[in-house]
Amino acid sequence: MYRTHTCGELRLENAGQTVTLAGWVQKNRKMGGMSFIDLRDRYGITQVVIDESSSSELNEKVAGLGREYVIQVTGIVEERQGKNPRIPTGDIEIKLTHLNILNEATIPPFTIEDESDGGEEIRAKYRYLDLRRNPLKRALTLRHKLAHETRNFLDGRNFIEIETPFLIKSTPEGARDFVVPSRMHPGEFYALPQSPQQYKQLLMVAGYDRYFQIVRCFRDEDLRADRQPEFTQIDCEMSFVEREDVLNTFEDLMKHLFKSVLKVEFKEQFPRISYADAMRYYGSDKPDIRFGMKIREITDKVKGHDFVVFDSSPYIGGIVVEGIASYTRKQIDELTEWVKRPQVGAKGLIYIRVSEEGIKSSIDKFFSAEELQALADDMGANKGDMIFIMAGKQKKTQVALGTLRIELGNRLGLRRPDRFAPLWVYDFPLLEWDEETKRFYAMHHPFTSPKPEDLEKFYSNHKEDLEQVAANAYDFVLNGTELGGGSIRIFDSNIQKRMFEVLGMSEEEYLYKFGFMIDAFKYGAPPHGGIAFGFDRLCALFGGQETIRDFIAFPKNNTGRDVMCDAPSKIDDTQMAELFLKSTAKN
Amino acid sequence: MYRTHTCGELRLENAGQTVTLAGWVQKNRKMGGMSFIDLRDRYGITQVVIDESSSSELNEKVAGLGREYVIQVTGIVEERQGKNPRIPTGDIEIKLTHLNILNEATIPPFTIEDESDGGEEIRAKYRYLDLRRNPLKRALTLRHKLAHETRNFLDGRNFIEIETPFLIKSTPEGARDFVVPSRMHPGEFYALPQSPQQYKQLLMVAGYDRYFQIVRCFRDEDLRADRQPEFTQIDCEMSFVEREDVLNTFEDLMKHLFKSVLKVEFKEQFPRISYADAMRYYGSDKPDIRFGMKIREITDKVKGHDFVVFDSSPYIGGIVVEGIASYTRKQIDELTEWVKRPQVGAKGLIYIRVSEEGIKSSIDKFFSAEELQALADDMGANKGDMIFIMAGKQKKTQVALGTLRIELGNRLGLRRPDRFAPLWVYDFPLLEWDEETKRFYAMHHPFTSPKPEDLEKFYSNHKEDLEQVAANAYDFVLNGTELGGGSIRIFDSNIQKRMFEVLGMSEEEYLYKFGFMIDAFKYGAPPHGGIAFGFDRLCALFGGQETIRDFIAFPKNNTGRDVMCDAPSKIDDTQMAELFLKSTAKN
Repeated sequence: MYRTHTCGELRLENAGQTVTLAGWVQKNRKMGGMSFIDLRDRYGITQVVIDESSSSELNEKVAGLGREYVIQVTGIVEERQGKNPRIPTGDIEIKLTHLNILNEATIPPFTIEDESDGGEEIRAKYRYLDLRRNPLKRALTLRHKLAHETRNFLDGRNFIEIETPFLIKSTPEGARDFVVPSRMHPGEFYALPQSPQQYKQLLMVAGYDRYFQIVRCFRDEDLRADRQPEFTQIDCEMSFVEREDVLNTFEDLMKHLFKSVLKVEFKEQFPRISYADAMRYYGSDKPDIRFGMKIREITDKVKGHDFVVFDSSPYIGGIVVEGIASYTRKQIDELTEWVKRPQVGAKGLIYIRVSEEGIKSSIDKFFSAEELQALADDMGANKGDMIFIMAGKQKKTQVALGTLRIELGNRLGLRRPDRFAPLWVYDFPLLEWDEETKRFYAMHHPFTSPKPEDLEKFYSNHKEDLEQVAANAYDFVLNGTELGGGSIRIFDSNIQKRMFEVLGMSEEEYLYKFGFMIDAFKYGAPPHGGIAFGFDRLCALFGGQETIRDFIAFPKNNTGRDVMCDAPSKIDDTQMAELFLKSTAKN
Repeated sequence: MYRTHTCGELRLENAGQTVTLAGWVQKNRKMGGMSFIDLRDRYGITQVVIDESSSSELNEKVAGLGREYVIQVTGIVEERQGKNPRIPTGDIEIKLTHLNILNEATIPPFTIEDESDGGEEIRAKYRYLDLRRNPLKRALTLRHKLAHETRNFLDGRNFIEIETPFLIKSTPEGARDFVVPSRMHPGEFYALPQSPQQYKQLLMVAGYDRYFQIVRCFRDEDLRADRQPEFTQIDCEMSFVEREDVLNTFEDLMKHLFKSVLKVEFKEQFPRISYADAMRYYGSDKPDIRFGMKIREITDKVKGHDFVVFDSSPYIGGIVVEGIASYTRKQIDELTEWVKRPQVGAKGLIYIRVSEEGIKSSIDKFFSAEELQALADDMGANKGDMIFIMAGKQKKTQVALGTLRIELGNRLGLRRPDRFAPLWVYDFPLLEWDEETKRFYAMHHPFTSPKPEDLEKFYSNHKEDLEQVAANAYDFVLNGTELGGGSIRIFDSNIQKRMFEVLGMSEEEYLYKFGFMIDAFKYGAPPHGGIAFGFDRLCALFGGQETIRDFIAFPKNNTGRDVMCDAPSKIDDTQMAELFLKSTAKN
C-alpha cells in the first residue's frame, strides 16, 4: 500500500504521527520561507509543508512539482498555525520528510477546480480530468449511494435482482432499436433492449413475484437535449398486486432514498392525482407541485359578453399569479409574445391586473370593473395579483396555460432545486391516435392493461370509444419531471391479442414478434404490474441539477458520440465480411 | 393485494386465522372424501383442503383445477393430522372457504418438478416454465444473494460502483467484438465491451481510487461448451496499491461471500502459488487443490537405465495415486488410451504398482525391483498406491500429467462440489508467442505491467528474453476453475507504448486504438491494479454445479441463439437502409 491514510481523514488527534499519503498535487506554492503543497485524493485535501531551511535536495524536488503530479509523501502530522475551517483536515498539516514522485503530469488543458475554465467540449474530450473535479465526484458518489440504497431497500422487501439479456430479439414498437449483427447466424441481428419489459413479465409468469434490476437500456432515437442513447433504469415488477400495492411499495422506496441519501423525511402519503385532473389543474401530465398557481376553468363564466374570442372558444381558463400586479405593460407584452411562439402555440394572452389602484385588464371593453372583480374573486385573486387567461380548444389551451405556469414558476423562483415535491399521476389514456399514420399507438406500451370498467369500449371498433379507454397506468413525478412510469399489465392472452389488433398488427405480425409472450400467458400467468424509474434523471434531481450528463461517468454527446475515445468508428473490412455486411455509406 | 401471506410462511401458530394465498396449483388430488391442493409460489408450498361434504359448488370448482392454474384461495389455517416434516409449512393446512381462479393454464410441456421429464431443448424454449422449478429458483436466488453481498462488502470498503458505457470504441485485441452500427454516423460502429478495462483504468486516472461494477460483458467467440456470448463480471480496480493489497482485499471479499452466503468460514490465509510452481506441481495454471496427488519431477532419477523413452526425454514426471494399486491391467490400459487421445496428447503412460505383493511396473525390464522401490519411496508412494509416469517435453508433459491428475480426481471422487479450495496463482508470463502469426500476444491483456525486475528483458529485442518476462498478474482459482484474474497495470505511458510495440502494433495503430489511454497516462496516472471475477461461474461453483446455464435467467444456446424468443432474427430492409447496411448473407 502506498499510503497509511487518505487525504481526507487526518485530524488534530493524529498530531505527532508519522504518516504516508499519496495523491495529486492540487497546488504548490512558496510563501514566507515555506513551501505548501495541497495534496488531493478522492477523500479530500491535506496540506503538506516544508521549511526552506530543511534538506535542500527535498526542497528542490518540491520546487519541481507541477499541478496534477502524482506523489507519495511521508511526514509528521502537526497542528496548523493558521487553521482552515473550510476543509475537514484544516486543523493539521504534514511536515514533509520524504517525497516520492510516482508520476509526472503534463499541464492539464483546463483547471481542476469546482468552477473550471474549460468549455464543455474540451472537458468531454478529457473526461478523465473533468471527473477529478468535486462536482462530478459528488455526482458519481451520490449515484452510487442511490443505487446501493435502492438495492438495500428492495432486498429488504424480498425483491430479487435478476439479470436479463442484452442481446435480445428486435421487436420495434415505439422507439428504434440498436441492433447487433450476428456472425454465427448470417443476415440476422440481435437488438439491444429498450427495457427488459418482456423478460420481467416472463419472470412473473415464472413465479419470481418480486423482481428488480438496475439495468442499462438503449434507444436509437434522434437525441433531444439531455437524452442519452444508453441510459439506466430501476426496473421492477410484482405479482399478485393491484395499483395501490405498487404505488405504496415504490413510494416507500422513494421515501427511503430521500431519507437515507438526502436526510429529507416525508411523513405523509405522496399526493396522487388523476391524469384528467393533472391536465385540468396543471395543463401537464407531470405537474410541478412545488408551487400552486393552478389553472381554473372559467368557460361558463365569461361567455356572452360580446367578446368573440371567448364566445367562439370551447374552453377558457386562467391562472392567478400572486404578487406580480406590478408587472409593466412591457413585461406583459413580452410574456404574450413568449406564449405565441410556436413552442407554446397560444393565440394570445389576456391579463387582469388586480392592484391597489383597482382592476385593469385587456378586456375592459367587454367587462365592467364589477364583473372583472367578481371574476377575480371567483378565481381567488387578491390585491397585488395578476390573472392570465387563454381561450381555445380545451387540451391545447390547458397545455399552453401549463407551459406559462411553469415559465412563471421559473421566473419567480418558485421551483427551488432543494425542495422536493413528489406526486403520483394515474389513469392515463390507454391509446393515442396518430393522425399521420392513422392508427393507435400505446401511450405506455402494448402490455399495459385497460381498466376493467373500460373493457367493453376496448372491444369496440369505434375510434371514439377506444380513445376513452383508460389504462391502469401511473407515473411518478418529481418537481415536474416524470421519473418513473408503470402499469398493471395484461395477463390474459386474449386481451393481449386484442391489444395488438387495436395497434393495427396482423395476427402474423404479432405472433412473429410476441408469440412467445402470448404462449407464456397460456401457462398460468399471474396478475402483475410494475414500474421503471429513470435512474440518471433520479440522480440528477436528487443532486439538485437539471442535466443528467454530470451524473453519468462517460456520457455521449448530442450526436451519440463518445468524444473521449472517439466512438463510433470504422471497423475492418474483414470484420464486415465476417458479419456478412456491406456498408452503403458514402466515402 | 391478492394475498395476506405467501405459500411459505404459515406455521402452527397461525392456526385459527383466516388467510388468503395466491399461487400455482402444483398438485390437485382426491383422497378419502377430501380434495387436496398443493399451492405453490416462490416461497414454498401450502396444502389446501376441502371436504366433499362442503359446498358442492366449491367442490366442483376445485375438481376443475388443472396443474399450473393460478388461483387465489381463502380459508382457515388448521393443524394437519398427518404432518409433513419435509416442508416448513407441513404442520398446517388451509381449510378452503373461497376459491378464485385467476388464470387457467394449458398443461405444460414438461413437469414442473425438481427432476423434470423435459429435455434440455424443450425446457430452453419454455424457459419461463423451467424457471418455476426449484433448482433454478435456488440458483437465481443464490445469484442475487452473491451480488448483494458483493456490493455490501465493497461498499463497506469504500469502493464505489460506477457504470461504464456499453456503446464503446471497437479496439479488437484478443477476442472478437460484437459491434453496433450507428445510424447517426453512417458507416461507423460502436463495440460492446469485452470488459470495462480501459474505462476502469481511466477512472483510476480520474482519482476514483476504489471502483467496482457488476457488469455485463460481451465476446463474439465461437462458443465452447458452457460459454455465453454475454456474461457478467465483478469488475474492480484500486489505486495506490501493490499486488498484496489487491490479493488481501479480494480474499476478504471471497471470505465474506463464503461466510455470508454459504456459512463456510475460512480462518487461514488462502494458499498462494507461483505460476511456475503451479505448472511444476499440478501441470495447470488453475490447480484443483481439493486433493494432493502432486506431480513430482524424476528426470534426474530415472535416466541411464537404457530405457530410450526416459533417456531421450528432457522431462520425466509422475504422480502417486493413493489406494488404487488394485487397478486391473484393463483399467490401466484404458487409462493409457485415455491419455493418448489428442485432447491429452501423451505418448504413453508408465505405471508402477506398489502393492502388498510387491512392486510391479511396465518398466520392469529396465529397473530392478529395488530400484523401483527406491523410486517409489522417493516419490512418497506407500503400499496400495499406484505411480503413473510420463516423459517428454517439459511443459507438455506437465500439462498431460495435470490432466490425468484431474481425471483421476474425478474418477476417485476427490473433487467434491461441497468442498471449497481457493487458491491464488501469481507471476504469470507477460507474453505468449504465437507460432502461426509469428508474434507475441498479451497473456492477460496489454495493460498488464511487467514485473519491475524484468524491465530490462522487456526492452530487449530477443524473443527469448521477452518470453521470460514475468507479469505482475494473478488469478483467483477455486476448485480448479479460474474464477478471477487481474494485475498491477502499466501506469507509465512509455512502458505502455513499449507494450504495444512488443505486441507488433505500429505507432499509428496503437495511437488510433488507444491514443486516449496513452494521453490519459500523461496527466498524472496513479499506480493501480485490479481484478475481475467471472460472476456466472462464481455462482455456479457456489451452487455446487458444473455448468453456468442454470445460474443465468435467460441463457443462449451453444450457437448463441435465444430459443425462447428466437433471437437473433432478420430485421426490416428499411432499418438496414437507415443503418447504411446491406447483407451479403445468402438465404
